[in-house]
Amino acid sequence: MTITPQAPAAARAVPVLPTSGPVRPLGLGQVSLTGGFWGVRQSVNAAATLAHCESWMERLGWLANFDRVADGTTSPDRPGWSFSDSEVYKLLEALAWEAGRTGDQGAEAAIKRLTARVARAQDPDGYLNTCFGHAGQQPRYSDLEMGHELYNTGHLLQAAVARLRTAGEDDLVRVARRAADHVCRTFGADGLPGICGHPEIEVGLAEFGRATGEDRYVEQARLFLDRRGHGTLRDIPLGRAYFQDDVPIRRAEVWRGHAVRALYLTAAAVDVAVERGDDELLRAVQRQWERSVERRTYITGGMGSRHQDEGFGEDWELPPDRAYCETCAGVASIMVSWRLHLATGDVRYTDLIERTLYNVVAASPSPDGRAFFYANPLHQRSPGRPADPSEVSPRAEGGTRAAWFEVSCCPTNVARTLAALAGYLATTDDDGLQIHQYAPCAIRAELPDGRPVAVDVETDYPASGTVRVRVAAGASSPWTLSLRVPAWADGATVTEDGRTRPVEPGMLTVRRAFQAGDVVVLDLPMRPRLTWPDPRIDAVRGCVAVERGPEVLCAESRDLPEPGGLDALVVDAGTGPEPDGGGARVRGRIPAHTGRGWAYAPARPAPLTELAELAELAELAEEGGWFDVPLRPYHSWAHRGPTSMRVWLPVDGAPRP
Amino acid sequence: MTITPQAPAAARAVPVLPTSGPVRPLGLGQVSLTGGFWGVRQSVNAAATLAHCESWMERLGWLANFDRVADGTTSPDRPGWSFSDSEVYKLLEALAWEAGRTGDQGAEAAIKRLTARVARAQDPDGYLNTCFGHAGQQPRYSDLEMGHELYNTGHLLQAAVARLRTAGEDDLVRVARRAADHVCRTFGADGLPGICGHPEIEVGLAEFGRATGEDRYVEQARLFLDRRGHGTLRDIPLGRAYFQDDVPIRRAEVWRGHAVRALYLTAAAVDVAVERGDDELLRAVQRQWERSVERRTYITGGMGSRHQDEGFGEDWELPPDRAYCETCAGVASIMVSWRLHLATGDVRYTDLIERTLYNVVAASPSPDGRAFFYANPLHQRSPGRPADPSEVSPRAEGGTRAAWFEVSCCPTNVARTLAALAGYLATTDDDGLQIHQYAPCAIRAELPDGRPVAVDVETDYPASGTVRVRVAAGASSPWTLSLRVPAWADGATVTEDGRTRPVEPGMLTVRRAFQAGDVVVLDLPMRPRLTWPDPRIDAVRGCVAVERGPEVLCAESRDLPEPGGLDALVVDAGTGPEPDGGGARVRGRIPAHTGRGWAYAPARPAPLTELAELAELAELAEEGGWFDVPLRPYHSWAHRGPTSMRVWLPVDGAPRP
Repeated sequence: MTITPQAPAAARAVPVLPTSGPVRPLGLGQVSLTGGFWGVRQSVNAAATLAHCESWMERLGWLANFDRVADGTTSPDRPGWSFSDSEVYKLLEALAWEAGRTGDQGAEAAIKRLTARVARAQDPDGYLNTCFGHAGQQPRYSDLEMGHELYNTGHLLQAAVARLRTAGEDDLVRVARRAADHVCRTFGADGLPGICGHPEIEVGLAEFGRATGEDRYVEQARLFLDRRGHGTLRDIPLGRAYFQDDVPIRRAEVWRGHAVRALYLTAAAVDVAVERGDDELLRAVQRQWERSVERRTYITGGMGSRHQDEGFGEDWELPPDRAYCETCAGVASIMVSWRLHLATGDVRYTDLIERTLYNVVAASPSPDGRAFFYANPLHQRSPGRPADPSEVSPRAEGGTRAAWFEVSCCPTNVARTLAALAGYLATTDDDGLQIHQYAPCAIRAELPDGRPVAVDVETDYPASGTVRVRVAAGASSPWTLSLRVPAWADGATVTEDGRTRPVEPGMLTVRRAFQAGDVVVLDLPMRPRLTWPDPRIDAVRGCVAVERGPEVLCAESRDLPEPGGLDALVVDAGTGPEPDGGGARVRGRIPAHTGRGWAYAPARPAPLTELAELAELAELAEEGGWFDVPLRPYHSWAHRGPTSMRVWLPVDGAPRP
Repeated sequence: MTITPQAPAAARAVPVLPTSGPVRPLGLGQVSLTGGFWGVRQSVNAAATLAHCESWMERLGWLANFDRVADGTTSPDRPGWSFSDSEVYKLLEALAWEAGRTGDQGAEAAIKRLTARVARAQDPDGYLNTCFGHAGQQPRYSDLEMGHELYNTGHLLQAAVARLRTAGEDDLVRVARRAADHVCRTFGADGLPGICGHPEIEVGLAEFGRATGEDRYVEQARLFLDRRGHGTLRDIPLGRAYFQDDVPIRRAEVWRGHAVRALYLTAAAVDVAVERGDDELLRAVQRQWERSVERRTYITGGMGSRHQDEGFGEDWELPPDRAYCETCAGVASIMVSWRLHLATGDVRYTDLIERTLYNVVAASPSPDGRAFFYANPLHQRSPGRPADPSEVSPRAEGGTRAAWFEVSCCPTNVARTLAALAGYLATTDDDGLQIHQYAPCAIRAELPDGRPVAVDVETDYPASGTVRVRVAAGASSPWTLSLRVPAWADGATVTEDGRTRPVEPGMLTVRRAFQAGDVVVLDLPMRPRLTWPDPRIDAVRGCVAVERGPEVLCAESRDLPEPGGLDALVVDAGTGPEPDGGGARVRGRIPAHTGRGWAYAPARPAPLTELAELAELAELAEEGGWFDVPLRPYHSWAHRGPTSMRVWLPVDGAPRP
């Protein structure tokens, strides 16, 4: 086939487009998913989730809030939290990527419909918020700590970036310009010295500046960044670390406080560092990533150990049962790592993105795209109740995916990420193409010198580990095809010209004058493997996890002979795990006696009910108490209904009296 | 010596006095501490803590709130939380016990001083609250979920009980009668069908009814109890389990939600069950105690696993690092177990009281009685900052005892418990004396038939395990001396008439016609011992704790060759622990390599900083890497300044790759 040179717009259709860097992201017009694990999810997102989100926001009055401002009928009884406007903007961003990706007219119509209502609510001076500054409401910027006004605006700017890069200037972009100008006037170097309690305006301004070519927006982002960390906000009971106002980001050593806040702020710091050539700031962020990923990140890629403040815990504080791992923190972590990869080319960042995509982002939505996990714990002790699809969940926990939440940041965050996913798969540099995430897709791009790089990726990854990259257009001179070999992929091989050779984790490169039809096959080892935790992680001592390819696996009580068994189950780490379809099998057993609660009477036996339950289990179990424990991908847990679940499995033979 | 018959007042001077039961508590006039572990704390409480509490409440305007109501100068800017009145009442209760115990004139003066200010704020109809119902305030009972109005009144009633039983009817008692009558009129069978979001009025009414002989107060307590658990209160994001309005207490299987709320409610349930002869209710509470103590209670006796809602977690959810274990929950647990013991005579309840007294209540106050722990975690990862004694701590955590808190329920709860402690040491039945807690004290009581039971207890317990009970007055006929042998005391012995015999955990009884000078010696084994956790407690798998007598021990980083070592320390469970003064010694080492963070790159080595620190440790360590780890009583942790700490020690030889 012949390649038509990519329209500039196609190359710009990405969420993040630094003005410089070792690699350039490919846009939605250059990479298109053609099915597979992510293609299916992207289709469900388009077909179900986007409309689901709009209907809920209509039902709850979050959209009507804009009409009430426009009509001058605001009052203190406004429905929704102060950040409900941002959900409308995140939905607009998702719709913009979707319309840009497929030209879908339904999405296009929704964008116009929502934009019109949003635009009517904008004040003459550009201020746009449905919770503050109007009749019956608190004054503008009277609660920077918790008011979320600038946070909302930041999401408006990200939505406008998506629209500008996929459809060009339109009403949404013009509304965003006026809002951004208002922010610069109000909080500029000569304006109010404030910042927002929830970072987001910074990352929104930085990208909006890149997309519009207006550097003053980037400068305002830098100003907000450098104002932070000096006790600029009022203290709160949780402490200023909650919103990262405790230490300037250049001096911080680790991520702390509210996870989504910390990560949105960090994403903006990478943008500013790149645009300003500020290597000191970039190195500071890299150090924070190093320590936080090493000591404050779950095996799933999830971040945020604490429910209390939706925040990072201390080093090694990673309880699986109370892991918060907010879905939004997973999205934000990908925002940070993608920016760091674009700034450095380091594959460790794209490794973490893969881990987070499969084990946090993919875990949130139900197969039908109409229910979501907000928190993503690695251990569910008691099965949740079946969720009522017509009910708003007041809680972010519970072991069951909910249709909507009182604080409903996650559904729209998943939606915008899935709609823009093609923008995170591949990059180019002056000499070739780099593929970071494996999914069936068509890549049509060209190098700066005009040479086409066009390949089709054929794979059912992660069902299997075979990735066939078929060259779709020949080149007159050599170029380099680079394929990421994940850190977990010990024993991977590459086959080209019928020759197979082993490859190490990192970036595999194949350089030649590719001809149409040439095929490079990457084989990743998909045999399930044991992963042992660092002994400093107290909460999972004596446990092991099982992973298969990029997927973390888990045990669900519904697959055990007796649900209660998951409390007492131990597994044999000496044999297995054995492959079992898309999951694995390990040998497990229920110890004959389990101990005696601990508490006040060490000599007290377990209660009879407990013993009876265990006896029943023993009968059911085969070969001397051992039975097979099926393990399935964590992202699919509770798909079959409420269940208790665990990722970290206690190993038989832990120290005993 | 001769015994003068005890004045009735002396026998009534106790916090809890059921109208029936297998045993009767001895009062402050019958048992007097004469020094030792608790005598010292009681003296510090009297000499420092009581005045400390009053001065903070004066400084913060919590006392002035009463004046403002009396002067009609209330306004929306009232200082303190809605429950600050209760701190004044808990202080009054502590002062009343102290004045009753010693006749201290300073305490007596403080009672009159505080009572006068409280009395002036009472409305003509008996309503007494400084946060609701007056100019510039919300209407009475307009926020039953979180307003704490009835909660405050409950503490007023408990203070009045202390005063009535130690000094007789006075202004405080009269104020309490009017407040109690107002509650009965307002919330009686024909009144508002509401309940308070924070239980306490129930236990206050029940005991006030016993103390005044007015059964209608007990009946009102029963009414509040039975109204609860039917969704009587509005739902909140944390769910109705937070304030135990999810399930009627008769049908509940386990304690859940906010720990202090759950335990105050349960204490009242025991009172009502006893006064009404309601065995079904009593059995329900006993079942809840069984399961909660087995599965939701820390080795320290601490209750409440979660910071998020200060609440119980699920079964087996007992993380040491994020253990909340609020000091007030320890006090409330003692309230429940003491009532259950008086209702049943079961020593398991007094066993738990001992555990909680030494490892929660004793842990809270600093040696000078002017700083307190609010939360009592079993693992502190990073040393707290030295507390500023002139500052109010906005947070209930932090690893350092604070002079006062924004929510300052704990200091006054510790104060009233220590002042009334003599009321929890011993009981009598028709045939003799039972001693439950060991402290140097003089016991002067008599049996229903008039026979004197008078003994002096000589011991430096828990420094040593020898308890000498010397009979102070002879009896013409035999009576039974019963001594509690703690559940942990395997190998205890008793010596009488020069004969020593082994005794089992439980109640040891010696029956005879005791003569003045007779001595019974109980020897409890004080050698430090290992305690292994139930394997279902995920958070401490692969760890062991060390206890000595009733004291849980802990390791502090300041005692290790290198503070960072506490993260990687493992101990040898095969040898020791060895006695070491009032603590113990175990062998520990720092594994040569500790793993690699967990995260995204299994093959990634630990960062250099980490390795350097470990190398330094290895040099410092003796005999092939092993060194002695001193363990000290948990209740004394951080007495030497900020430090990291752990109770559960990882055992060398946990499962590894």
